Amino acid sequence: MARRVWNFSAGPGALPLPVLEHARDELLAHSDVGASVLELSHRSPAFEALIDEAERNLRELLDVPQTHRVLFLQGGASLQFSMVPMNLLRSAGAPAAYVLTGSWSTKAIAEARKEGETVVVWDGAGSGFATVPDTLEGLAPGGAYLHVTSNETVEGVELPPGFEPPADEEPPLVCDASSDFLSRPIPLERYGLLYAGAQKNAGPAGLTVVMVHEGLLERIPDGLPSMLDYRIHAEHRSLYNTPPTFAVYVLALVTRWLRDEIGGLEEMAERNRGKAALLYEAIDASDGFYRGHAAPEARSLMNVTFRLPNEELERAFVEQAAANDLVELKGHRTVGGIRASVYNAMPLEGVHELRGFMDEFRERSS
Amino acid sequence: MARRVWNFSAGPGALPLPVLEHARDELLAHSDVGASVLELSHRSPAFEALIDEAERNLRELLDVPQTHRVLFLQGGASLQFSMVPMNLLRSAGAPAAYVLTGSWSTKAIAEARKEGETVVVWDGAGSGFATVPDTLEGLAPGGAYLHVTSNETVEGVELPPGFEPPADEEPPLVCDASSDFLSRPIPLERYGLLYAGAQKNAGPAGLTVVMVHEGLLERIPDGLPSMLDYRIHAEHRSLYNTPPTFAVYVLALVTRWLRDEIGGLEEMAERNRGKAALLYEAIDASDGFYRGHAAPEARSLMNVTFRLPNEELERAFVEQAAANDLVELKGHRTVGGIRASVYNAMPLEGVHELRGFMDEFRERSS
Repeated sequence: MARRVWNFSAGPGALPLPVLEHARDELLAHSDVGASVLELSHRSPAFEALIDEAERNLRELLDVPQTHRVLFLQGGASLQFSMVPMNLLRSAGAPAAYVLTGSWSTKAIAEARKEGETVVVWDGAGSGFATVPDTLEGLAPGGAYLHVTSNETVEGVELPPGFEPPADEEPPLVCDASSDFLSRPIPLERYGLLYAGAQKNAGPAGLTVVMVHEGLLERIPDGLPSMLDYRIHAEHRSLYNTPPTFAVYVLALVTRWLRDEIGGLEEMAERNRGKAALLYEAIDASDGFYRGHAAPEARSLMNVTFRLPNEELERAFVEQAAANDLVELKGHRTVGGIRASVYNAMPLEGVHELRGFMDEFRERSS
Repeated sequence: MARRVWNFSAGPGALPLPVLEHARDELLAHSDVGASVLELSHRSPAFEALIDEAERNLRELLDVPQTHRVLFLQGGASLQFSMVPMNLLRSAGAPAAYVLTGSWSTKAIAEARKEGETVVVWDGAGSGFATVPDTLEGLAPGGAYLHVTSNETVEGVELPPGFEPPADEEPPLVCDASSDFLSRPIPLERYGLLYAGAQKNAGPAGLTVVMVHEGLLERIPDGLPSMLDYRIHAEHRSLYNTPPTFAVYVLALVTRWLRDEIGGLEEMAERNRGKAALLYEAIDASDGFYRGHAAPEARSLMNVTFRLPNEELERAFVEQAAANDLVELKGHRTVGGIRASVYNAMPLEGVHELRGFMDEFRERSS
């Protein structure tokens, strides 16, 4: 058995060990086709079975309404920052409304401004992006769409469960769910469009999942580059050109694991709450040695961000943790300090290890 | 040992067996980092070593001039069909010139027309896309750029070695080399920009390699979506956002294999000529039973396309070949017949098997 560390990377992040073992065991020959998944034509029956399974599993796990199309694209959330306004803002005749909660929504807004009128309807900069809005209701009457980032990976703030406005409220809700996708149930019927880079909870880097209400496809202006037009991908069932086939395969395996080994997203969310609670408790019980970045009501269950009394201690924390096989704990440079990303694939055991290290490090250092 | 077939898929295509074995052996834990490559942060030293190696190997294999930047992008050639004119045509003040040699250049032209004035300066439609131009010299005086498709995967026609105009001829040469990239040496100093989807000779689907002369970066208009602006990717050394990390890793392994086990691109080209010759000889010696699609002087070394006397025989050929573990031989629906893709990773042994089957099938059927 190869040595494996506890990997708290913010993304690409840890994948479930059974998924990796499965991929390894058939890397030379998938199923009975006599070729690796890496070598499968995207038009082959074997690959079509995989992309169909990935969609079917997602629909089952998230209870995706029949009104919504599921697309498998490339380019990450960063390309969605442009595709969303190119498709939904350019011909809308009304501004797009953005909720600004951190680094990723900042980037989304910068790209939207290149495509059309963009209004920031809630701004968390004053709190150093430690907070999230109490409610979204009524924030953007008459806009082209209302864009939120459900989890800010850098700052570690997350919109609480059930933040979505009622299903019939206009404008349509658009969400960058890259870093909490598949970590909990989502009432997709309340979303016009949801997108997520796969490389946190869903699979490898290089795959973006988009779920879009088919009614929104009618708003798309003609003449967009084919690769940037959601209609083209919907019409071709994500096979307009060659999709990132191996990443789609790993997504099929991850969603299979979520359903069969975890038992679905309610159970996954319960486990994620337990894991994050272990770390936030360590922060809250540390007499100020650990200072959480997020306001308690905005705390992310995916990215636990905190500071230590000084940068020297932060460096020592990261180094000594790594010596204990607890890796990738350095915070993003814009926030500093420590960031522990505890995505779906991080087992409770790994979080217990980190919790034990945090308690022990504090006792030694304070 | 898992059963492996001879995979003649046009792409994603066969990968070298030693590359697959290497990837399998470390799929749970790469090098000494204790995590899978699939789980590595793109900001980690281990991944930076991989992306650096991929670039270094490409520069060595292709003798890439220092004037040229090497970028690792997403979206395949299909996204490049739009990125090229967005970056190089919109602000050029002159039309783009396209050489139309088959299905892929047709698509490239359709996307370019959305972005600006586009002129077809050579058109192979009259020959059913069985031919290629004798020369490119003087085809596009004063244009923004001259675009060619060095190998048309669907029709099986390829521009001959040395087709590139002299280095100092204007306009800059732009080439879609998706399906013959790394199959032979390229005089990159004669190119302004060359792009290639990786899924033929270079690696898995989901990665696009772009090589661009840095002088062309100065032509790019401001205000493009960041993900579609070559300058942004060049400035961030392909790490503006999360790249398709696993595909970059496989590219590093494939290029290592080309250098260390094959011995470089001259040797690879020699082997590819030998493999293709085996199949074209079978066609030419068949007394018209096999009819090659491409004119002899335009024959692709990568995709060997041919017809049989009727569609019933073509179906029987594909079925019986598959029963002999020779798979993915059905031609693209626009050309019909048979297509044998013999990319770098297809060993001579597999081509011998196919050649034997072709001779035997003809004897049985004619």
